[in-house]
Amino acid sequence: MPDLSGADFDVLYQRLRGQAQWGTTDRRGALNHITPGRVAAAASEVRLGRTVTLAAPLASSGPDNPEPAARHMKHLPSEPSEVAGVSFAADQLTMNIHGDVDSHIDALCHVSYHGSLYNGVSPDAVTSQGASELSIEDAHDGIVGRGVLLDIPRVRGVQWLEPGDHVTAADLAAAEAAQQVRVGPGDLLFVRVGHRLRRNQLGPWDVARSRAGLHPQAMEYLAERQVAVLGSDSNSDTAPSLVEGVAFPVHVLAITAMGMYLLDYLQFDDLISHCEAAGRWSFLTVIAPLRLPGGTGSPVNPIAIL
Amino acid sequence: MPDLSGADFDVLYQRLRGQAQWGTTDRRGALNHITPGRVAAAASEVRLGRTVTLAAPLASSGPDNPEPAARHMKHLPSEPSEVAGVSFAADQLTMNIHGDVDSHIDALCHVSYHGSLYNGVSPDAVTSQGASELSIEDAHDGIVGRGVLLDIPRVRGVQWLEPGDHVTAADLAAAEAAQQVRVGPGDLLFVRVGHRLRRNQLGPWDVARSRAGLHPQAMEYLAERQVAVLGSDSNSDTAPSLVEGVAFPVHVLAITAMGMYLLDYLQFDDLISHCEAAGRWSFLTVIAPLRLPGGTGSPVNPIAIL
Amino acid sequence: MPDLSGADFDVLYQRLRGQAQWGTTDRRGALNHITPGRVAAAASEVRLGRTVTLAAPLASSGPDNPEPAARHMKHLPSEPSEVAGVSFAADQLTMNIHGDVDSHIDALCHVSYHGSLYNGVSPDAVTSQGASELSIEDAHDGIVGRGVLLDIPRVRGVQWLEPGDHVTAADLAAAEAAQQVRVGPGDLLFVRVGHRLRRNQLGPWDVARSRAGLHPQAMEYLAERQVAVLGSDSNSDTAPSLVEGVAFPVHVLAITAMGMYLLDYLQFDDLISHCEAAGRWSFLTVIAPLRLPGGTGSPVNPIAIL
Amino acid sequence: MPDLSGADFDVLYQRLRGQAQWGTTDRRGALNHITPGRVAAAASEVRLGRTVTLAAPLASSGPDNPEPAARHMKHLPSEPSEVAGVSFAADQLTMNIHGDVDSHIDALCHVSYHGSLYNGVSPDAVTSQGASELSIEDAHDGIVGRGVLLDIPRVRGVQWLEPGDHVTAADLAAAEAAQQVRVGPGDLLFVRVGHRLRRNQLGPWDVARSRAGLHPQAMEYLAERQVAVLGSDSNSDTAPSLVEGVAFPVHVLAITAMGMYLLDYLQFDDLISHCEAAGRWSFLTVIAPLRLPGGTGSPVNPIAIL
Repeated sequence: MPDLSGADFDVLYQRLRGQAQWGTTDRRGALNHITPGRVAAAASEVRLGRTVTLAAPLASSGPDNPEPAARHMKHLPSEPSEVAGVSFAADQLTMNIHGDVDSHIDALCHVSYHGSLYNGVSPDAVTSQGASELSIEDAHDGIVGRGVLLDIPRVRGVQWLEPGDHVTAADLAAAEAAQQVRVGPGDLLFVRVGHRLRRNQLGPWDVARSRAGLHPQAMEYLAERQVAVLGSDSNSDTAPSLVEGVAFPVHVLAITAMGMYLLDYLQFDDLISHCEAAGRWSFLTVIAPLRLPGGTGSPVNPIAIL
Repeated sequence: MPDLSGADFDVLYQRLRGQAQWGTTDRRGALNHITPGRVAAAASEVRLGRTVTLAAPLASSGPDNPEPAARHMKHLPSEPSEVAGVSFAADQLTMNIHGDVDSHIDALCHVSYHGSLYNGVSPDAVTSQGASELSIEDAHDGIVGRGVLLDIPRVRGVQWLEPGDHVTAADLAAAEAAQQVRVGPGDLLFVRVGHRLRRNQLGPWDVARSRAGLHPQAMEYLAERQVAVLGSDSNSDTAPSLVEGVAFPVHVLAITAMGMYLLDYLQFDDLISHCEAAGRWSFLTVIAPLRLPGGTGSPVNPIAIL
Repeated sequence: MPDLSGADFDVLYQRLRGQAQWGTTDRRGALNHITPGRVAAAASEVRLGRTVTLAAPLASSGPDNPEPAARHMKHLPSEPSEVAGVSFAADQLTMNIHGDVDSHIDALCHVSYHGSLYNGVSPDAVTSQGASELSIEDAHDGIVGRGVLLDIPRVRGVQWLEPGDHVTAADLAAAEAAQQVRVGPGDLLFVRVGHRLRRNQLGPWDVARSRAGLHPQAMEYLAERQVAVLGSDSNSDTAPSLVEGVAFPVHVLAITAMGMYLLDYLQFDDLISHCEAAGRWSFLTVIAPLRLPGGTGSPVNPIAIL
Repeated sequence: MPDLSGADFDVLYQRLRGQAQWGTTDRRGALNHITPGRVAAAASEVRLGRTVTLAAPLASSGPDNPEPAARHMKHLPSEPSEVAGVSFAADQLTMNIHGDVDSHIDALCHVSYHGSLYNGVSPDAVTSQGASELSIEDAHDGIVGRGVLLDIPRVRGVQWLEPGDHVTAADLAAAEAAQQVRVGPGDLLFVRVGHRLRRNQLGPWDVARSRAGLHPQAMEYLAERQVAVLGSDSNSDTAPSLVEGVAFPVHVLAITAMGMYLLDYLQFDDLISHCEAAGRWSFLTVIAPLRLPGGTGSPVNPIAIL
């Protein structure tokens, strides 16, 4: 049974949208929370000089990956070459930008709700040629700031949240308290639900039907804290949805209402051991989307630097 | 007329290979020059909190791009959706990893010379399934360090180096002096030849025939300085080659002899104005290759943070 | 200077559209001219038992092929296999359906003119998911009939028509007379302009600017003769266009007005020698589009059987 | 438990290979059984003038299709166009040539057994650039002949053969008797096991584990009859294999020993009703592989003409 009626959700949507006030021509959304001063401060998070990936390797076909990415060889270095004195290994990549397993970032054109993209931009801005507005190119200089990881299974004392379970604002607050970190303005917030650990241990399942994520009302917490970006090891939305008649309410609230880029299907298991060893859950983070003109997002490998 | 005979080149090759001594099982090559201490020091380069892309947008077909990348839409947000209450923009990407225009990084499996990849690894390690050794996955935690940009056209007082021209060790030293910066151990060295500015102003040309790059002997300078990574707005190799019988001598020296990742066809024109304004030519740099198991490289968007 | 004003073209368009009367729900268009009786009669054209391709091999990149098809290997038979006792060669294909060099067929959804596809179908029938009407699946049982080749360079006494030149109804009549063949109801008409021979001998050029084809008024000749399908070794349209303000008038007339499938960039040079040897210019022809649901056309290899 | 030991299989392999005697340079294999006279005779099979597809539409992802083909739109006709006066629908196709659901033909380079392709050709003839010998281009003029459909479920009085079941030479003889047709030299033999009907009715399953096909010894029957091509609605091989240590024995016997092109995952359900109505099980058949230089096969839509 959904937690939120469609009407209640729309009230929430309007409230969050009303807080995203950077002018009618704004295309950066919650990235506006990242200021030069905050970037410089985030750099001071680097103490150990350790770098860690927040992405997972490309996955092969499975119940959560019906159209897997493919990498094909174009030339093998063991073969004769047309080039003098040298032989190359070269390959080619074909992949969907979105999906339910490979780590990626959603651009602000990714979600239309009530006939509108972020900040009133018409969905017609996206044609077969791509997005003329709100494409991933709007983040071409990268997204750099202080990353904070909130590890919900850790604070709940479980290995992972079961599919269908959700993270509330209270969970976020409890994780902050347990981890002794406070999410603040311009932060890149990473919420771990344990999705990937479960996948590694039990194997993939049909996540379109059953997936842990955030409760839509938890987005108010992110708005209050002026979070710049949200990433998760799931896609932040639960399945089934907690909202009547709206399948991806967190996507709608984050991207369309708040102008907040989402990072889906990240991998935090490498990062956790570094955080635990350091006794710290914040770090400099650099997200470098590919420069895909008109693109609705990008595969990414966010790098945490402790 | 080539500057270097094949025999002289092999002497150079052996000398540089002999300096890359990290053990027979090493797979990181010149990345070994990047230590945690150097990463932490590089973070202190961040002062302004400004971030800048070092990549160019995906290019369309042209004389330097006979097999262009393609981005196709999978769903438009203006169209009815099968998902309740929301409509998505989604797309798909097909691209060659290497080539002569899109910004990318070469993994250490990319080049075979004299029947060997870096550090004696057999070219047979690369099959139709990809590279079982020396793939781009070896850099999955990102490449982070102090970036230094040496702007050769600036020190020479020209807009760009003409195709076929080359950068010598003396050019690098002159640029260091003029820019008041010194390349040191673990640095990510970016050498600008003006390739992209020329392309933007005069249009693309057949760069396989005619291209500015580094003189192969300049690689000794990089070895002495213990550079970790080399990037250029061309592919670092001149065309025609300056070496008799070897088409890509800088690729061979950097990747196969020195174990040095190359970044090809970067874009420094955005960065230059930041550097000039700041009066500094060094900055924190984060390179985040995609996690492509078996891959020979990756498209990248390196981010400089000043 | 165009031969036809926009207004004159519209008169021609309406006249040809008016002759295509198979009811408001028809989706087969000129294929209706092919009756079982005519298929059976076409089979009697087979006398020698010789089969000939009317397609060219996939082309590589060139001025007429800015986004070339690619075929990549997935497994090599010389490599160890996960399959017991056997090793496979396998590959993968990526290609645009249309373009200016690879042999293909255009489905009836391919062209919209004055806001309409063939027979008043809305262009909105084609979305990012493909064509819900008039897709190539409408020809899934193949197109089989009597093929007739009219060789215009032959009757004109030239090697090929120069780019920009056009074939008139008089040319078609002259070729019929010279070749002693008469195009009739349900025939698959192939008009050779010599495009591919010129390409083979002089190399590719930018055909988007300069291309031999049919004069738009020649389509009246095809309508009178009740031709079922038109194929050419160019794309049947001249460049520049002979019609003011309409870039592909033959495509518009054939596909949108007449409901006639077009076959573009076929290859007749193999066929000619067979026809000359046999002293006949008609033959059984089988066109077998791939079964691509929603597709706007298909790569094809039409087979002539003499 | 396998029916055939590895040693017995090798005896069978050698015997069938010994019967394929068209000289050391032959690359056509069993296509040699198709003579011009037989093509001409096959044309006389056309009586009704009806054409029928033997292919299925491209399938989407499923347990038998882990890497599905994709068709993406490049332009929609409802969108503004850069072309004067007209707007196009255009798309792009990406697909694996082989696999377990889409109808395709296997070229003679597809299978290596005991370190050899057909007729002693080295597997090294296939590199990352494709097959330099035995590619699908060897069939570029199409494969045309008399097709004969043997419907095994019909003669057995079942809807379909259950996965794992196999067709014996006795089954083939029984079907011939029941259908009053005799397979002869140069025929294109189609053996229906009911795979596709089962898939349509029960949904897809993991056919790599469990699949109906031919018993390897039935290939002797095909050799005696001098069959030119074998097609099935499965891939002709059972799963699990009936041969100890050889996963695809029919592929090995047909392609490598006999030089016989295989057509996998065809669709006969449309054809059956035509055959039943006509009371005949033979027909003219045209197979038109795409012209894919170096290709290991091709998607196909074989057309039967009754």
